[in-house]
Amino acid sequence: MRLAARPVGLPQENVWQRTEEAVPEPAEGQFLVKVLYLSLDPAMRGWMNDGKSYVPPVGIGEVMRAGAVGRVVASKHPKFAVGEHVVSTFGVQEYALSDGRAVTKVDPKLAPLPVWLGTLGMPGMTAYFGLLEVGEAKTGDTVVVSGAAGAVGGVVGQIAKIKGCRVVGIAGGADKCRYVVEDLGFDACIDYKGEDVKKSLKQHCPKGIDVYFDNVGGDILDAALTQITRGARIVICGAISQYNNTTPVKGPSNYMSLLVNRASMKGMVVFDYADRYAIAGREMAGWLAAGKLKTREDIVEGGVQVFPDTLLRLFRGDNTGKLVLKIAEA
Amino acid sequence: MRLAARPVGLPQENVWQRTEEAVPEPAEGQFLVKVLYLSLDPAMRGWMNDGKSYVPPVGIGEVMRAGAVGRVVASKHPKFAVGEHVVSTFGVQEYALSDGRAVTKVDPKLAPLPVWLGTLGMPGMTAYFGLLEVGEAKTGDTVVVSGAAGAVGGVVGQIAKIKGCRVVGIAGGADKCRYVVEDLGFDACIDYKGEDVKKSLKQHCPKGIDVYFDNVGGDILDAALTQITRGARIVICGAISQYNNTTPVKGPSNYMSLLVNRASMKGMVVFDYADRYAIAGREMAGWLAAGKLKTREDIVEGGVQVFPDTLLRLFRGDNTGKLVLKIAEA
Repeated sequence: MRLAARPVGLPQENVWQRTEEAVPEPAEGQFLVKVLYLSLDPAMRGWMNDGKSYVPPVGIGEVMRAGAVGRVVASKHPKFAVGEHVVSTFGVQEYALSDGRAVTKVDPKLAPLPVWLGTLGMPGMTAYFGLLEVGEAKTGDTVVVSGAAGAVGGVVGQIAKIKGCRVVGIAGGADKCRYVVEDLGFDACIDYKGEDVKKSLKQHCPKGIDVYFDNVGGDILDAALTQITRGARIVICGAISQYNNTTPVKGPSNYMSLLVNRASMKGMVVFDYADRYAIAGREMAGWLAAGKLKTREDIVEGGVQVFPDTLLRLFRGDNTGKLVLKIAEA
Repeated sequence: MRLAARPVGLPQENVWQRTEEAVPEPAEGQFLVKVLYLSLDPAMRGWMNDGKSYVPPVGIGEVMRAGAVGRVVASKHPKFAVGEHVVSTFGVQEYALSDGRAVTKVDPKLAPLPVWLGTLGMPGMTAYFGLLEVGEAKTGDTVVVSGAAGAVGGVVGQIAKIKGCRVVGIAGGADKCRYVVEDLGFDACIDYKGEDVKKSLKQHCPKGIDVYFDNVGGDILDAALTQITRGARIVICGAISQYNNTTPVKGPSNYMSLLVNRASMKGMVVFDYADRYAIAGREMAGWLAAGKLKTREDIVEGGVQVFPDTLLRLFRGDNTGKLVLKIAEA
């Protein structure tokens, strides 16, 4: 699946181009990966835009960038053997060649393959480092996270609970909120589609918000700003509400609350913590094994062909848990 | 000068009430201060609004809050003698009673009295701690400061030069920019009234902005956000462009630049550093004496009666340097 044009607003069918090619043969030092599961991430929308960002944009005519987990099916690389499972940015395609750079082996016995794209993958790492390093969450803090039923938000809240925080989620719809509270164990969840977020934050965070982990931006970020405590930390992880805007991004009008409260707003990109993924991964796998951390993947069937519509599900907020597209049978 | 009504937008004459009372006698443990110079600060506009902030709002009917320097003219306080000069929040009035709390003695031989409201007063302390503690400016950094010809901004830039930074100011009008570069020694100054701020920032900050010290908010904050470096620090000290808005505050649309650049935006209130004012004051007085730090006060004559119009000068940006209202002959 190649990017044919830069989208304006939501990426519709016409920005994609489907091409078919022969499955390539690995050259010396390469191996061939059969892609099994594809990761759908809000960040993909940003990669489709032209302009400077933390990674170069996907070029017009290039295979769309995507994280994926797959199996090595042919190898001329000394360190990757046929049959091994690997995760990396293999792209929206059925087969990918790799030279092994930025590729991690995964053990499907430790956790099912899709989990390596979610709780034990980038979203999980984002949650772990964003909450603990950037947000400096500590026992007794009140932590609020938006996109609470999503791949990052769900893990943020669960780690915060493990660390002894009071945790309030924000999600869209009663079903998601039920999942967040009953399955993930948050103390409360605010349905932004049905509630006055500011009022509900006041109710559920009587001592104010010490850490706000923001995945959505827009009005919800503004509401959270009105309830922060002195010295609060706001982690800017994403702004899914703004990614498909055709009008300018809505900046947080209440940002002067940072001054009044001597608070900070700090951006993060998970790649900066790459040298510590393994440490975090071990700790999170331990929590998974102990039942302290629950993981949920929303797996869509249909292969590469349904990628365009599956991406839109993400921006409609249709998914609960990590949105994954199944490409082939494991 | 009492606050008669909460202003909407710019504080016009009708929000003020002039009253005359007999000069009070100090009770036991009190002293009477004759106010000599009054400090005009952008923060005053915030104090006039109802609602929770870092200090309570000025009540309707109360004397307007203001920093001031004065002389003790009567005393029943063991630690304050007649003839001594003092600085504190004495309010917009000709005489003030004090019990000595939050009052600092000043030495007019070390620096003229108005300087104790500017470079050696709150604005100077704000500049010192905001730049060095919150902004973590260090040798080699590119520092940009808005309101560069103002009481805080002018000191921020000069301290940054002392610390070995490249310093670019932003101010309104060619005269102010000339003052900022020629008198204060900034490397460059951008006239936001006559230049494309974003383009000029790009030109004057070829390596990007490491520290942006914001006194103004609005479009200039947004322009600065587009030019920050990885790990940049934005100090939110004020937002004078937004204080008199009758429409909602313009939030920084480009705040997602914080994410891309792993940068932070942090608010500050100078009062938090009160226990270290003396240390900073000694260092700054040393720089003043050595000619490394220049100070300029824009002194308006006319006494308490002209306070309302003098405050408006601040929001019109008429002042260069610290705006001070002379109340009485020293």
